[in-house]
Amino acid sequence: MAKNKINTSVLSGFVELLPQSQFVFDTVKSIIENTYKNAGFVAIDTPTIEKSEVLFAKAGGETEKQVYRFTKGDNDLSLRFDLTVPFARYVADHYANLTFPFKRYQIGKVYRGERAQKGRYREFFQADIDIVAENNLSIMYDVEIISTIIQTISKLSSQFNLGNFKVKVSNRKIWDGFFKQFGFDDTKKVESVAIIDKRYKFKTEDDFKAELKEKIGDEKIFNLAMALLKIEYIPNVGISIPESHYNDFSFIKDNELMREGISELETVMKYLPLSNTEVDLSIVRGLDYYTGTVFETYLQNYPEFGSVSSGGRYEHLCDFYTDKIICGVGGSIGLSRLFIPLIEDGKIQIDTSMTDIVILPQNENCYTSAIKIKTELNEKVDAKVNVIFENKKFKKMMEYANKINAKFAIIIGDDELQNNTFTLKNMITGEQQTISSITLIKTITKTLNK
Amino acid sequence: MAKNKINTSVLSGFVELLPQSQFVFDTVKSIIENTYKNAGFVAIDTPTIEKSEVLFAKAGGETEKQVYRFTKGDNDLSLRFDLTVPFARYVADHYANLTFPFKRYQIGKVYRGERAQKGRYREFFQADIDIVAENNLSIMYDVEIISTIIQTISKLSSQFNLGNFKVKVSNRKIWDGFFKQFGFDDTKKVESVAIIDKRYKFKTEDDFKAELKEKIGDEKIFNLAMALLKIEYIPNVGISIPESHYNDFSFIKDNELMREGISELETVMKYLPLSNTEVDLSIVRGLDYYTGTVFETYLQNYPEFGSVSSGGRYEHLCDFYTDKIICGVGGSIGLSRLFIPLIEDGKIQIDTSMTDIVILPQNENCYTSAIKIKTELNEKVDAKVNVIFENKKFKKMMEYANKINAKFAIIIGDDELQNNTFTLKNMITGEQQTISSITLIKTITKTLNK
Repeated sequence: MAKNKINTSVLSGFVELLPQSQFVFDTVKSIIENTYKNAGFVAIDTPTIEKSEVLFAKAGGETEKQVYRFTKGDNDLSLRFDLTVPFARYVADHYANLTFPFKRYQIGKVYRGERAQKGRYREFFQADIDIVAENNLSIMYDVEIISTIIQTISKLSSQFNLGNFKVKVSNRKIWDGFFKQFGFDDTKKVESVAIIDKRYKFKTEDDFKAELKEKIGDEKIFNLAMALLKIEYIPNVGISIPESHYNDFSFIKDNELMREGISELETVMKYLPLSNTEVDLSIVRGLDYYTGTVFETYLQNYPEFGSVSSGGRYEHLCDFYTDKIICGVGGSIGLSRLFIPLIEDGKIQIDTSMTDIVILPQNENCYTSAIKIKTELNEKVDAKVNVIFENKKFKKMMEYANKINAKFAIIIGDDELQNNTFTLKNMITGEQQTISSITLIKTITKTLNK
Repeated sequence: MAKNKINTSVLSGFVELLPQSQFVFDTVKSIIENTYKNAGFVAIDTPTIEKSEVLFAKAGGETEKQVYRFTKGDNDLSLRFDLTVPFARYVADHYANLTFPFKRYQIGKVYRGERAQKGRYREFFQADIDIVAENNLSIMYDVEIISTIIQTISKLSSQFNLGNFKVKVSNRKIWDGFFKQFGFDDTKKVESVAIIDKRYKFKTEDDFKAELKEKIGDEKIFNLAMALLKIEYIPNVGISIPESHYNDFSFIKDNELMREGISELETVMKYLPLSNTEVDLSIVRGLDYYTGTVFETYLQNYPEFGSVSSGGRYEHLCDFYTDKIICGVGGSIGLSRLFIPLIEDGKIQIDTSMTDIVILPQNENCYTSAIKIKTELNEKVDAKVNVIFENKKFKKMMEYANKINAKFAIIIGDDELQNNTFTLKNMITGEQQTISSITLIKTITKTLNK
């Protein structure tokens, strides 16, 4: 920082990238966006600023403390802290003009004044998909949300070499029915489920077991809960309870919630690709608005990121805003949390360059020709074309072309001008040829479309 | 609004679009982005929230009053009101890691708490391009900025049928040199130039003349100023002063600022397409940071929008943040101000649909087949594919397909399932055929790529 000058660093917890990293991040974002779009979701955009009464209709506690809230004139305003609450308001507000089932995606920045730490940002992108309808919505849309997430992460993983991942799927109704069966009140149920939700955050499985056992109190119920945590999905068979406990669970046939939960989970698993999914009843999802299917996604090679995409089924999305019963299912990819550290640590690379072609006129006489060939390239080829008017030595210009990673350099000097030609240098192979504009465009098109 | 529910309308001065309108707006945005990118500009993104001391280093008066400013913890924060100040901070902060000339684009939301009125939003998108370098920058980059703006607006105009447009170009040095010649002090100069800047906002040209004459005071100088307003660019000749005043302007040969300004304007005009540009010395641009070339852009069919794109040359961009001398030239398209009213008034249409293909399984038995063909389409065709699990009557499903404007419907019933076929209906021609998945994908690809 220079003397007497204003400090130019971004605020703590905020992030901005150098152009090359920004280019990688934007590529990630556009892969997500295209996959969402081709999966049948349509974009919406909502204001970053909302009335505080809208955002805090449901939120409370931790969330409310983190929000950027302020007044302007008479208005009590807040920056959105997620994309779900604004979506609920949007659906309520535009209800009459939407076609249901309404499938929307939204990729945008959200704001939380959390304590700054690596991978936790105060401004970050979320990429959400949701499917909503009035009164009821087929369980098949739970399948659709999870398969779109799988499609998207598969693409990102193959493009950026992220390795295998698993979506862990569960259904809230199973635990709800289970604890109801044994007469747990709401508080005890919520506390027990909260321990299950944190299973993988305990130092050891024994620590987890000890805490769960203490909370549940009854050894028999605890044992049943542990057995329930072992259920899995077997193709062509369905959800299977460990054989040793088969008789202990005979109560399920009269427990409607558990039956529903198991049947929904079975349907969801039936239609999802087995290679990327597994049943795991320790997935509960902290947020209290989920009511059925819940899921989280883990990258095998990057356990430190925790879940990189999660979501689930909810009822009563818009209750604070309308009398209509809007239910839905959604999922979200936390792209900043995952990709900004990966990019900053140089863990992901990209083939495509920020510049395809750089045009280097060697003196002022060549400027008209440079502008003409640039215009022609922009009209005929979908390529990033940069032109430099620097009157520098040839060597300096080549250094610049290398620095910006151009794939081609087009050199125009007095000789080229006189012969109405261009010298085209392939910066990767080093090959160089002096050719007409027609041949130049053909050669570039051929190489770039490879 | 339902009883006892929270009001869901967006804040006054804010805007959100229905999905179909959002789709048009996003198309506009991506045309701008692709043109910028292919013209050699690279993307950056900066936080929406900045330290107030950064934003207000130069701003003052009206701007400062409009800003959304608030505190969080110990921090005095503000939402960015343009993309230029954050860019200046970015260049100063990342100076050592940038390659100059640095050409960046940034398309993002900015915030101004202006009085709400049609076409004036409190949250709106700007689409900026700038080229910056240290110490000096060829006048050819002024050409590049304006030609990129022309390229972009031409594309938008031909896509959305906006008609002709003109970029009006001027150079500040000409007026600076002119008023200096006659010994105007800074205040009188600024006030005279401000009147010239508002020329087209006066009710009549006579009103304008009267006010300018009064301000200038001296009739001879006033007449010269009026003559200067008539200068134009003649191809292969250059900037031409009205013949009747030729001798009155003989002082120019000793007025370095005016000579520089005229020579720069001549160079800029020489390389720009004449069909979309004209010299107009009434263009001054209010902001005081412009120092040379300035331009504004007008749509012939939509004079009510005023200038839809403007910009110019500036020196000392980063003086508040660094000792380096960073100079540059930039331009901006106010896409919200132009396109949101056009979209909301139904004045622009779009051919492409939000949905290319809708898959309609007719009962639960057909779900697996529906998911399979969707996956296959997503892998093999770049198309937006929606699948609906509704178990509704065929007629209802067709209504839905029509409502979402799908180009193709794929119907899967028991017959199709048994024969391992699909019924493909072209929703535009009404043509319907029952075919294998291979033929289906071929037919769709052929039609969509037309």
